[in-house]
Amino acid sequence: MSLLFKNLRVHQVFGANTDVGKTLLTSALVRASAALKNEVFYLKPVSTGPMSDADDEHVKRFAGAYKDAVRTRCLFRYDDPVSPHLAAQMSADRKGEKTAIFPTDSTFVTSVANHIRQCASESRKSAHMYVETAGGVHSPTLSGTTQLDAYRPLRLPCILVGDSKLGGISSTIASFEALALRGYTVDAILLFKDSYYKNYEYLTPYFAERGIRVDSFSTPPPRHEDIDANFKVTEAFYAEMVLEDTKEGGIYDLVKHLDAYHEKRLDELASMPQRTLDTVWWPFVQHGLNNEPQNVNVIDSAWGDYFTVFNGHHTPRPTSSHSVLEPQFDGSASWWTQALGHGHPALALAAARAAGRYGHVMFPQATHAPALRLSERLVRDGPGQGWAARAFLSDDGSTGMEIALKMALRTFAASRPERPREWMKELGVLGLKGSYHGDTIGAMDACEDTGVYTCEWHHARGFWFDPPTVGIRKGRTVVALPGAMGGDEASTGSLVQTYDIQSRLDTPLAALYREHIERTLHKLSDARLATLVLEPLVMGAGGMIFVDPLFQRVLVDVARKLLEVPVIFDEVFVGLHRLGLKTTSEVLGVYPDISVHAKILTGGLVPLAATLANSKVFKAFWSREKKDALLHGHSYSAHAVGCEVANETLDILERMERAGQWDEAKAAWAANEQSGTVIWSLWAPSFVDMLSRTPGVKEAMTMGTVLAINLEDHEAGYESHSAQMVLSSLAQAVGSIESGTSAAPGGGPFSVHFRTLGNVAYFMTSLNTPDATIREVEDRIWAALNSKTLN
Amino acid sequence: MSLLFKNLRVHQVFGANTDVGKTLLTSALVRASAALKNEVFYLKPVSTGPMSDADDEHVKRFAGAYKDAVRTRCLFRYDDPVSPHLAAQMSADRKGEKTAIFPTDSTFVTSVANHIRQCASESRKSAHMYVETAGGVHSPTLSGTTQLDAYRPLRLPCILVGDSKLGGISSTIASFEALALRGYTVDAILLFKDSYYKNYEYLTPYFAERGIRVDSFSTPPPRHEDIDANFKVTEAFYAEMVLEDTKEGGIYDLVKHLDAYHEKRLDELASMPQRTLDTVWWPFVQHGLNNEPQNVNVIDSAWGDYFTVFNGHHTPRPTSSHSVLEPQFDGSASWWTQALGHGHPALALAAARAAGRYGHVMFPQATHAPALRLSERLVRDGPGQGWAARAFLSDDGSTGMEIALKMALRTFAASRPERPREWMKELGVLGLKGSYHGDTIGAMDACEDTGVYTCEWHHARGFWFDPPTVGIRKGRTVVALPGAMGGDEASTGSLVQTYDIQSRLDTPLAALYREHIERTLHKLSDARLATLVLEPLVMGAGGMIFVDPLFQRVLVDVARKLLEVPVIFDEVFVGLHRLGLKTTSEVLGVYPDISVHAKILTGGLVPLAATLANSKVFKAFWSREKKDALLHGHSYSAHAVGCEVANETLDILERMERAGQWDEAKAAWAANEQSGTVIWSLWAPSFVDMLSRTPGVKEAMTMGTVLAINLEDHEAGYESHSAQMVLSSLAQAVGSIESGTSAAPGGGPFSVHFRTLGNVAYFMTSLNTPDATIREVEDRIWAALNSKTLN
Repeated sequence: MSLLFKNLRVHQVFGANTDVGKTLLTSALVRASAALKNEVFYLKPVSTGPMSDADDEHVKRFAGAYKDAVRTRCLFRYDDPVSPHLAAQMSADRKGEKTAIFPTDSTFVTSVANHIRQCASESRKSAHMYVETAGGVHSPTLSGTTQLDAYRPLRLPCILVGDSKLGGISSTIASFEALALRGYTVDAILLFKDSYYKNYEYLTPYFAERGIRVDSFSTPPPRHEDIDANFKVTEAFYAEMVLEDTKEGGIYDLVKHLDAYHEKRLDELASMPQRTLDTVWWPFVQHGLNNEPQNVNVIDSAWGDYFTVFNGHHTPRPTSSHSVLEPQFDGSASWWTQALGHGHPALALAAARAAGRYGHVMFPQATHAPALRLSERLVRDGPGQGWAARAFLSDDGSTGMEIALKMALRTFAASRPERPREWMKELGVLGLKGSYHGDTIGAMDACEDTGVYTCEWHHARGFWFDPPTVGIRKGRTVVALPGAMGGDEASTGSLVQTYDIQSRLDTPLAALYREHIERTLHKLSDARLATLVLEPLVMGAGGMIFVDPLFQRVLVDVARKLLEVPVIFDEVFVGLHRLGLKTTSEVLGVYPDISVHAKILTGGLVPLAATLANSKVFKAFWSREKKDALLHGHSYSAHAVGCEVANETLDILERMERAGQWDEAKAAWAANEQSGTVIWSLWAPSFVDMLSRTPGVKEAMTMGTVLAINLEDHEAGYESHSAQMVLSSLAQAVGSIESGTSAAPGGGPFSVHFRTLGNVAYFMTSLNTPDATIREVEDRIWAALNSKTLN
Repeated sequence: MSLLFKNLRVHQVFGANTDVGKTLLTSALVRASAALKNEVFYLKPVSTGPMSDADDEHVKRFAGAYKDAVRTRCLFRYDDPVSPHLAAQMSADRKGEKTAIFPTDSTFVTSVANHIRQCASESRKSAHMYVETAGGVHSPTLSGTTQLDAYRPLRLPCILVGDSKLGGISSTIASFEALALRGYTVDAILLFKDSYYKNYEYLTPYFAERGIRVDSFSTPPPRHEDIDANFKVTEAFYAEMVLEDTKEGGIYDLVKHLDAYHEKRLDELASMPQRTLDTVWWPFVQHGLNNEPQNVNVIDSAWGDYFTVFNGHHTPRPTSSHSVLEPQFDGSASWWTQALGHGHPALALAAARAAGRYGHVMFPQATHAPALRLSERLVRDGPGQGWAARAFLSDDGSTGMEIALKMALRTFAASRPERPREWMKELGVLGLKGSYHGDTIGAMDACEDTGVYTCEWHHARGFWFDPPTVGIRKGRTVVALPGAMGGDEASTGSLVQTYDIQSRLDTPLAALYREHIERTLHKLSDARLATLVLEPLVMGAGGMIFVDPLFQRVLVDVARKLLEVPVIFDEVFVGLHRLGLKTTSEVLGVYPDISVHAKILTGGLVPLAATLANSKVFKAFWSREKKDALLHGHSYSAHAVGCEVANETLDILERMERAGQWDEAKAAWAANEQSGTVIWSLWAPSFVDMLSRTPGVKEAMTMGTVLAINLEDHEAGYESHSAQMVLSSLAQAVGSIESGTSAAPGGGPFSVHFRTLGNVAYFMTSLNTPDATIREVEDRIWAALNSKTLN
């Protein structure tokens, strides 16, 4: 991940095209940096073409009087002057190898990062480093991935060498935008002052308006046939550009500008913790307990499953050669939102595409392709398949649930036309203790009042059952019954068997559930219960409570029969593959009347929610009078950016499923079970088994991307900090800088960011998190757990 | 705006660079289209370089046997083979003119559009048109705007000619991304099969993965010195590519692919109304009153202040030569969200930048640059200047208001520690009748229950004053008092004087307000009123009610003195320059304790809200116990995309203000008034005056970007449809196709989309809507009003 050193200022040099003078200008920068008394490192990770012409050779040759201060390096070298991915192939062909052995993107980026770290550790004083890419910004690297994407995990500050030839205005701007689209920061744009095309005259104000400095330089001399003569004119060119005497103006100004930006970058990062504590009001945080700068997580960027975080304010006295930016595994999938990791280029492009085509366009009585396509796929092919008729789009899970509640209450009211409006004001919901549906007051009112997550206006409206739960204890899958049902542990076979509802519907446990629910509901006959609201399978915020699915199924059946109420599935957290399931109905064997989806919906990029409803619910609002309508809306309802990103996300997830991306994990969990089971996890069965047998661990549980570890604790619940304390060592970056190998992109030490819910620690991945990463995180969890004496 | 014809399939040909073979491949396309019995139009809007080499000449010359079916045209021609903006300047220099007279972007695009419309009307049967750009995608047009941006209003379907040379993979992908970022759709990518660099081998699967077809063709012959010989080899090249006999394969497949996409585009648009009625549940819409396909507004794209909408389902029998896409002025600024118009490239790039750098990263206990920068500027330099201490970010105005209410209730409760928790459950708000704060239930509970905007769980908690209002009646500014205060009209001088609160604080009217409020509050002493909640100056959703600001000011003063409650300003609609004011405190002369901002905050792109609070409010939640915290949060709280776009928006608005963008409008409204007044409008004073004197208009009112027209109506209120009926003729596109002149980009007829609130019609612009557009919309409103016999 990103590297930033106090003693070593690193820039990556991209070109707007091939042959725009990248090496010439980088050479001049190297020489000027050296003239200003810096150690200078030059890295050309991949070089193609004859050695005599190699860029690293050129840089060394023209370092002038500063040869000793300049160290050059090339990591991968190929003879043919073509794109690296072709050069490697041609070289393999010549050797008679069938296919070239390319480094993977991960190996490649780790090589580059290791070299940079090496340079930082070898540099005794202030040093500069220039990492020159090959060709244009999107020229392929050895693996075939284009450079922008391949180098992205390192996200080095950039210099873009613009194109001064005819057409160069276009390629320079387009290259800049491609860099921006990957989240790179461009510190300067350089180009030659071609006196005929004058691109610099156009580009300087163009980029000034966008806050980017353009430096332009005299055009280089034409290449001389004679080697000595060529050396002479070239040396004269550099001597002219990098003046010996003044060490001011021109390229020196640029070097100082880059120095200043480097300092600014470090200062900005160092200032952010206190500034944040001074101005920001965090969600769900007690500022009185979180007012130390060293505990502010400064996220400089993110890529894949990792944040890049600043460590300068909490790592004890890092040496100046340690990177002040380090990778941090995003262990909660950024509050349960990530499906495909951070900075995914396809999602960024989808956002850009919709922003460029529509911006936002208002939705009532209107339609646009991204919203219509999303609605249709959710209703017909997605979680609504088989039951839903309509999609209502809103902004987040909480608004999606408010809409669901309004739908359900009206549907119930419409079926009791004899009741007056005042009677309807006291309608309540039926649910489970531990539910959470969001923080707007309507969503809160659908949950019991536990004294937390609350505010003065919270009126808990309804009744909530204490549900039986599923967990793995000492290797055994166990259903724990609540006190009201005897409080025992029931053995329900394997995990797969426990989630095979059909086979459990006639068991004595099902009968116990049915009887308990029926008895309770009879007692509540005056309660005006108007809807059943469930988070299917797992109650997330309530403490990653895996509810016995049989209990939820029986509850749905009984509520429908006895109360005749619509059923809401709050799938904001559990839906859209989070639990490895396309829909939770696959397990429960029943459909809801209304369901709510968010979080993963946009792949974890921007807020968007969908409330799906069947036609009965829709009809409860249908009339010839405006006042009967569902008079709910948000200005950005169905915003095009969100819908386009959601469609892109669902496209990618569908492709992943078709390609069998999760088949290995599915196979690991189905071992010794009948085929066709739907329960699986990206976390290894052996690891979960081991966890569940660890002293101090009450139970472990997993499904899809989610792993929950329930620690034994006397003071359980939301206010407990036990899990946070037990696993606190995860916050330290671990790994050898020298070896450079770790699951983090670019290698190197990484820490693990994780969230807890009282005595429950949970971990969550994206749906494309690499196996190797998960295995390494498992090892880290294991080590953290065992570094503490539990209990 | 976008053009799409049934009889004429138009494609715009962009190049990944200059000299990539755009003209060669377009020539071949023209010839193949003609060979398949289509009329063919070729347009080169701008040509640079010698006439003998001109692209339109080339296309005509090599149309083979089909010369008669091919018509070519160039609109602007310059001799120098350089970028158009330079060529025009060089031509002017030669003529001794000091500066070249460039067409503006608007004139330029209208010329192109007029030519295209002309071709459509002249084409009797199926026809194809190719519009070839100059240079690369971002090469400047005559005005200096780059082509992507200059042609964007037309948003023609694109063909991208890729670059087959070394570096061409990069320029092709970067050009594609630049097109995507402007919301263009690329139907095909063409390039030559260079056998050495083999870019086509790389690019074909690369783009297949992104759903884009790549067609590759044999490389053209080298240019011959001898003119005749050159003609011969070139003709042979075309004859080879565009085979006479089979008319299948190769380029013919491409032509058929483009035909198929054209048909698909038409079919998709035609199908969207019914599909939307079948699947979508609209916000705030009674589907029982809106179930006719012809009333579904199909928005194909948007740019600036205009939607591009499909008219094929409601225009009576359009001829096939009429564009089925037409411009529609977005008269409600897309539900009050737009600040800078649709498809703004700087906002799209900001969204892309943050998506690429962060995706979304979770916010509790964390920080990232876009969120921190936004929080600081809102608190210190923006609406929080002078009073706010903290920013709490959420997803929309409704969630922002829920947060504000939770803050206010707790602040009140914390100041009454002697009261038990149960007492606090019945806290209420003090507000105004006609208030609206969003549709989540907590936000609803802060409003009175009027029977609309409601649901079963709505419990109106508080008391609401009927406020005096400001309007312009027959040219006079008038304050209308509610019945409880006598129901009279009071004359308060000019509009500017009416909003000069300081000068009115000691008037008898102020005393009347104070006395009325005090008397009422004394009667309400048991009501547990805990906060005063106001939409400063204008209550939007309640009916664009301009409340007498003096009343609001007195209310704040009295409520603070008598009730000691925190004050919430709901500025979701009125804030951030919507009313031409940086903050509403400028007028009211008092600060709130809490304020809420959304809508314009992101320039109208994605949902985001900010709740600002002063330090007293923040301290009410500060303790050493988690349960005392403001336990509210949304997964996407402070999402990076929203924050980055918000920062970009505020940067642009600040630059506009510094540049005096609104000075002319300000001057028009300040005429005959003392300088330094803050009340102004983008709508012309003379127009508003005229409106207010129109029979059937009860009153008109305007401020900033907002214009409200209150029509006399017996059945007033939200359920009334009178304003919609009176102005219904605005929905028809008006303007001459032939003249091609209108305020819409590209000229041509346009309709006006507008929203009403019962008997109030309102119109709203962005903050950068051109004067000419507003003047034309004023004319259209005037014509629509006068086409009906009012009353």
